[in-house]
Amino acid sequence: MKKIAILGSTGSIGTQTLDVVRANGDIQVLGISAGRNIAKLEEQVREFSPKLVAVWDEKAAGELKIKIQDTDTKIVSGMEGLLELAAMPETEILVTAIVGMLGIRPTVEAIRAGKDIALANKETLVTAGHLIMPMAKEYGVHILPVDSEHSAIFQALNGEEHKEIHKLLITASGGPFRGKKRAELANVTLEDTLKHPNWVMGQKITVDSATLVNKGLEVMEARWLFDVDLEHIQVVVQPQSVIHSMVEFKDGGIIAQLGTPDMRLPIQYALYYPHRRYLDGERLDFAKLRQITFEEPDMNTFLGLPMAIYASREGGTMPTVFNAANELAVRKFLHKEIGFLDIYDIIGQSMDRHHKSENPDLDEILAVENDTYQWIESRW
Amino acid sequence: MKKIAILGSTGSIGTQTLDVVRANGDIQVLGISAGRNIAKLEEQVREFSPKLVAVWDEKAAGELKIKIQDTDTKIVSGMEGLLELAAMPETEILVTAIVGMLGIRPTVEAIRAGKDIALANKETLVTAGHLIMPMAKEYGVHILPVDSEHSAIFQALNGEEHKEIHKLLITASGGPFRGKKRAELANVTLEDTLKHPNWVMGQKITVDSATLVNKGLEVMEARWLFDVDLEHIQVVVQPQSVIHSMVEFKDGGIIAQLGTPDMRLPIQYALYYPHRRYLDGERLDFAKLRQITFEEPDMNTFLGLPMAIYASREGGTMPTVFNAANELAVRKFLHKEIGFLDIYDIIGQSMDRHHKSENPDLDEILAVENDTYQWIESRW
Repeated sequence: MKKIAILGSTGSIGTQTLDVVRANGDIQVLGISAGRNIAKLEEQVREFSPKLVAVWDEKAAGELKIKIQDTDTKIVSGMEGLLELAAMPETEILVTAIVGMLGIRPTVEAIRAGKDIALANKETLVTAGHLIMPMAKEYGVHILPVDSEHSAIFQALNGEEHKEIHKLLITASGGPFRGKKRAELANVTLEDTLKHPNWVMGQKITVDSATLVNKGLEVMEARWLFDVDLEHIQVVVQPQSVIHSMVEFKDGGIIAQLGTPDMRLPIQYALYYPHRRYLDGERLDFAKLRQITFEEPDMNTFLGLPMAIYASREGGTMPTVFNAANELAVRKFLHKEIGFLDIYDIIGQSMDRHHKSENPDLDEILAVENDTYQWIESRW
Repeated sequence: MKKIAILGSTGSIGTQTLDVVRANGDIQVLGISAGRNIAKLEEQVREFSPKLVAVWDEKAAGELKIKIQDTDTKIVSGMEGLLELAAMPETEILVTAIVGMLGIRPTVEAIRAGKDIALANKETLVTAGHLIMPMAKEYGVHILPVDSEHSAIFQALNGEEHKEIHKLLITASGGPFRGKKRAELANVTLEDTLKHPNWVMGQKITVDSATLVNKGLEVMEARWLFDVDLEHIQVVVQPQSVIHSMVEFKDGGIIAQLGTPDMRLPIQYALYYPHRRYLDGERLDFAKLRQITFEEPDMNTFLGLPMAIYASREGGTMPTVFNAANELAVRKFLHKEIGFLDIYDIIGQSMDRHHKSENPDLDEILAVENDTYQWIESRW
């Protein structure tokens, strides 16, 4: 039995991780966690009988305690709770399926406790890649990407040598507004934005796909995860979302990973790496597919990508500002407090006013996040 | 220095192998061979100073001897000469770039002498895969595919486990007559047939691409090379020749190898496996490429593929008949003695009249080849 804990078990990646667990039958879920969705947590406790549940919200933790008092599951709360979950003595892998910078401290805790990380929390590497990757090396743990793009690159690199990489080709669907120009984006609605052409995902990442911020975050992550500089990472728009990403090697040969859009594949790949397991579900049918098309990303319209590249090139605390500004802007957009293009303005202005510091530690990263939030809240 | 010998150094694969040698500077060519092209052999002797040259034709061997008497290169001839070349004591790899069943005995000789085989001779596995693969295993040698499709699959399998293969997806350009129906093929000329849309290759393989016999031979080869049964090998028409082939795994994930059509890549990959080396030349540019399209092969028109699958399923000596009949039919087509569709008739009738024998040894395979030739010569 493989033993895992899941940080963020009620979200999109978390529930699909549990689908993979259910289908395989040889993974034991020792710990789960969520913000405050205790109805779903209760279901999960009853189905998977974890030893530990971490609930971020104290009050919700108290309510869950009453609901599941007939079980043996222990309930913890707050950041201390997440850290306890991350370092549970018997787990081998921590799945970091939580959204936001909240995921960073538990990830660090898990690495220090020698757990492999099935990484679905983008913020970890975006803001603290310079701390996390050397730490993973020091503690001898694997950082196993769960994102479909990074998993594709990870799969393409299987059996290959790092020094033979020429460039990473990260594919992008282009989002629901592909082909539109800036003027047309001014009045798009939240509902338009949430219609992703291919993938069913959480709301935040769906908005990030529309702005290309998500692709930008992926570039920032890929840089750390695969130790490749920004000049050797290229984004290719591939609207069918069939090629999940590619690696070009020094000899000009390109290895690509393709498939239907199904997050269970990269999740399962991370959990069983380097092995594969049978996965039910729709298979790619080339006769039905008929074509795969390619475009260059429109960097003049979808500023999420060039802004991310700028932040990553600046380095230090700048990626934290980029990410925090986007996180809060998207929250405001989801609450219909701002328009689509305001997301870019908020990110841009937050980065403009920031005096970056090089090589920040975790405390400084979290302080910059807070500072960025406060500055934005005072203006918008 | 890596030490190699090349069986068939004056043909398309042979000369491109020498291009790879020239570009890298750390491969020593100890032996070369050709049928009778002594002008090119002389050039190659003067440039690469091999220890041994094997010339198939006795008379040509004698002429070459006079031409290069100022060098230290030894000249041998006939089958004995090819066998001596195959087993040269210092070589590590034998590149089998010779066309036809002539390549089989030297390949066996090289395997017994412990050489890795960079395999470009299709006939070896098509007719004698049941003998060659167990022999390679017994002598602990690698069979390194040079064909772009098999190399792509070989690259896709790098780091993966055999038991996790779901199916091989061999791509096909569809050839110059893709989209045509049988009636339209009746009067196509040799010149039309030799216009391959993407690859510059030898004449025989170019005709085989037009008939889809080449794709059939590749399926037959893949079966042995990758130990996958015919039911798990699928041909996908991909007219741009950008995806060189793919592997679908049990989890539904597909790994593909892509690139420009440049045979030097698979040749170099075979010579340096599992390492890659820089290769100059045009790189794939997705923004320029714009699209990759897919079709099912038209098995009702291009009978080369279904006939090959039939021969392979029958097994025993049937693949030898398929291959020998095609070889002679193509020779007749190249000499304008028969029409395009006659190639299918010759293969079909040759297989119909053959009483197959199971599990033939090398002598029986070569006897069946001869018998097939004689029967065809007596009718056409």
